[in-house]
Amino acid sequence: MDPKSRDDSPSGDVQDKAPSRRGFLKQSAALVTGAASAGLAQGANAQALAGHPWERVYGAGFTGYGQPSRFEQPVMRHIGRPYGDLAPGSGSALAPIESLEGIITPSGLHNNRSHSGTPDIDPKEHQLLLHGLVQRPLKFSMEALWSYPMTTRTHFVECSGNSSRALAPQPAQVPAGAMHGNIACSEWTGVPLRVLLEEAGLLPQAKWLLAEGADSAHMSRSIPVEKALDDALVALYQNGERLRPEHGYPVRLLLPGWEGNMSVKWLRRLKIVSAPIMTKDETSRYTDLQGDGKSLMFTYPMEVKSVITHPSHGMTLRGAGLHQISGIAWSGNGTIKKIDVSTDGGRTWMDAPLAAPVLPRALTRFRLPWKWEGAAAVLKSRATDDSGAVQPEREKFIAEHGNNAVFHFNGIQAWSVAPSGEVKHVYA
Amino acid sequence: MDPKSRDDSPSGDVQDKAPSRRGFLKQSAALVTGAASAGLAQGANAQALAGHPWERVYGAGFTGYGQPSRFEQPVMRHIGRPYGDLAPGSGSALAPIESLEGIITPSGLHNNRSHSGTPDIDPKEHQLLLHGLVQRPLKFSMEALWSYPMTTRTHFVECSGNSSRALAPQPAQVPAGAMHGNIACSEWTGVPLRVLLEEAGLLPQAKWLLAEGADSAHMSRSIPVEKALDDALVALYQNGERLRPEHGYPVRLLLPGWEGNMSVKWLRRLKIVSAPIMTKDETSRYTDLQGDGKSLMFTYPMEVKSVITHPSHGMTLRGAGLHQISGIAWSGNGTIKKIDVSTDGGRTWMDAPLAAPVLPRALTRFRLPWKWEGAAAVLKSRATDDSGAVQPEREKFIAEHGNNAVFHFNGIQAWSVAPSGEVKHVYA
Repeated sequence: MDPKSRDDSPSGDVQDKAPSRRGFLKQSAALVTGAASAGLAQGANAQALAGHPWERVYGAGFTGYGQPSRFEQPVMRHIGRPYGDLAPGSGSALAPIESLEGIITPSGLHNNRSHSGTPDIDPKEHQLLLHGLVQRPLKFSMEALWSYPMTTRTHFVECSGNSSRALAPQPAQVPAGAMHGNIACSEWTGVPLRVLLEEAGLLPQAKWLLAEGADSAHMSRSIPVEKALDDALVALYQNGERLRPEHGYPVRLLLPGWEGNMSVKWLRRLKIVSAPIMTKDETSRYTDLQGDGKSLMFTYPMEVKSVITHPSHGMTLRGAGLHQISGIAWSGNGTIKKIDVSTDGGRTWMDAPLAAPVLPRALTRFRLPWKWEGAAAVLKSRATDDSGAVQPEREKFIAEHGNNAVFHFNGIQAWSVAPSGEVKHVYA
Repeated sequence: MDPKSRDDSPSGDVQDKAPSRRGFLKQSAALVTGAASAGLAQGANAQALAGHPWERVYGAGFTGYGQPSRFEQPVMRHIGRPYGDLAPGSGSALAPIESLEGIITPSGLHNNRSHSGTPDIDPKEHQLLLHGLVQRPLKFSMEALWSYPMTTRTHFVECSGNSSRALAPQPAQVPAGAMHGNIACSEWTGVPLRVLLEEAGLLPQAKWLLAEGADSAHMSRSIPVEKALDDALVALYQNGERLRPEHGYPVRLLLPGWEGNMSVKWLRRLKIVSAPIMTKDETSRYTDLQGDGKSLMFTYPMEVKSVITHPSHGMTLRGAGLHQISGIAWSGNGTIKKIDVSTDGGRTWMDAPLAAPVLPRALTRFRLPWKWEGAAAVLKSRATDDSGAVQPEREKFIAEHGNNAVFHFNGIQAWSVAPSGEVKHVYA
């Protein structure tokens, strides 16, 4: 209890540390037993207690709404605008999954896809109309919606075109997020759609819903009434706060596990109908062209899938020794049951532990310590969900669906590690 | 399947809706049985499909990092700076819990407390020193820390001074967040501190750790080694992305459930010692003055607590009828087991369902439908955790701890509802 025992000076004999074999063995004895002593890569050698400038001055004051560190500016979404400045709001902003951890995606980095940009909606002027084959057509102001019973659930939203770059003849040398980042996962809060439909009173012939957005493209999809009555949400909040504009402010539909475009943003109308409406968004696009020239329609759930986010393309391992493999997995059909990871291109596989919580139709994080010997390696992950579905190899997906199946690609992703530590995208 | 069945015009006979009794009864039959027909407050009556300006123009393009809607600008943290412009970084920014839902707090609205402002730390220059009573003193660059095995967990961080305004002689007429918002909850990812301590090798006499920040106040606390080996995290990520500067970028300690100030931000040093260091931050402050003039030291866990966030001070109910009561609860000792809600000032209590997931040392959301008859009412919530601890009435807390116990206040919060619908803070 002697205050003088406080010591502000660093000890003399201090090692700069990369993770030692010993620490990892404690974590994962079964996985790395028999490993030789790990190489200890040396980090930057600045003195820890040199008295950096920020320790000598008064720091910044408080802000009403915080932002990331200026040193994190490179962590940005990957923006794809196929029509360039001619249509700047038509395209996608993909989550930089290579820089993220855990399963929650911060809303500022959440993927988004839009067909005519993000509308600037005044919530006081916006209303949601529920009409068609109902006993009582209803119109909800945002304020009225607030008073309904809400529920909170964590779900991913994946654009059905996510990962389509993996169909290219040569592997795209781009970060993981630029290829697979049209997915993200948030905590959503809203009113179960079932509650609103029960209040309106569905007529016997009510079998489908037309969901329509208030963007100038009036994004529209037909949705089976069974899904609407099951787990669909009229979402008002994302990660604790009101929806962001690009994610559907002030209100969006959320259809857990289904194609992202069906979770219609800026929701202005639900018309109850007896048959699919065949909107432009379910005929001219979001149909899945197969190898035989036919197209699949109404392919709703996103398939079981995974990707290793660290290490991934563009990173360089600091040297032989112990590293952590970390990645995300998901399935629109349910809950991730198992992740296999291979470091030899798929010849042998290891079971990767899943980080809690493992939630249905949500991202699931897996992590596995890996002792890299310094030789060339190929990393793969393979997800299995609780329906028994297994993520296929890329070649198998293409053999079954062809090279133009730009929606619903869920093939296994491979990253090569060179002896230099450099990580690249390969087909393997 | 007839495309012509698509109809862009609204139905003629449409009701503007507040939630009807029918919808709520489906949700909570047991709770509102016997209620008379609900009053249907009328919302803003703008036409839902009038063709708002944003439906006729191309929307905004993509951004690398998204932000809230401009219409959400009023949702800001409540800033308290006791020394004003003399020390703009000394104080707190409190989460606007009255405007939030679910259990995840967006990082931009997460509460933060600092003693000398937010340092602008370059992660390439920052290191973490681990020394003292260890076999091998170690120094970690942020890059080296990245390679260690990580884990992800959702936990609240509460300043031990949270809610101390409830000790004032008269009830403060401020929003819920300005009184109880020095708490927030995030998904944290980092390296278990145990892994680093095991690598350094604790000597037999190692009983405590000094944790020290790199802010210019060098915020410092003594921590029992048992907590460090149990669930302490060296946190690098918050809600999926790297920590924000005000939350400890590039690395902070996280001691789940304990006083927020002990989760030392901008962590630069862990010195392993044999006894508490008695730093300024555990002697001159963060001791709990009791009614008898004595002070309690080293009161680590934050007590079981809850607060109704909706409705809460400053809101006005839209009229008699069905409303949703929503609130948050938490306990540093474990998991929330039960929430009782009263609408008559504590004479009778109802069991409020807990929203999944209910996680240890995390915020837990509870919600309860309430049929308000339009008469004066007093709302209270009372939390019980799995250790059996029950949140006390305010008077009981003061009787036990006195009026100066500005740390660890966990008394029950009361909101009055006037016949006009106006909600105010009351002692009741």
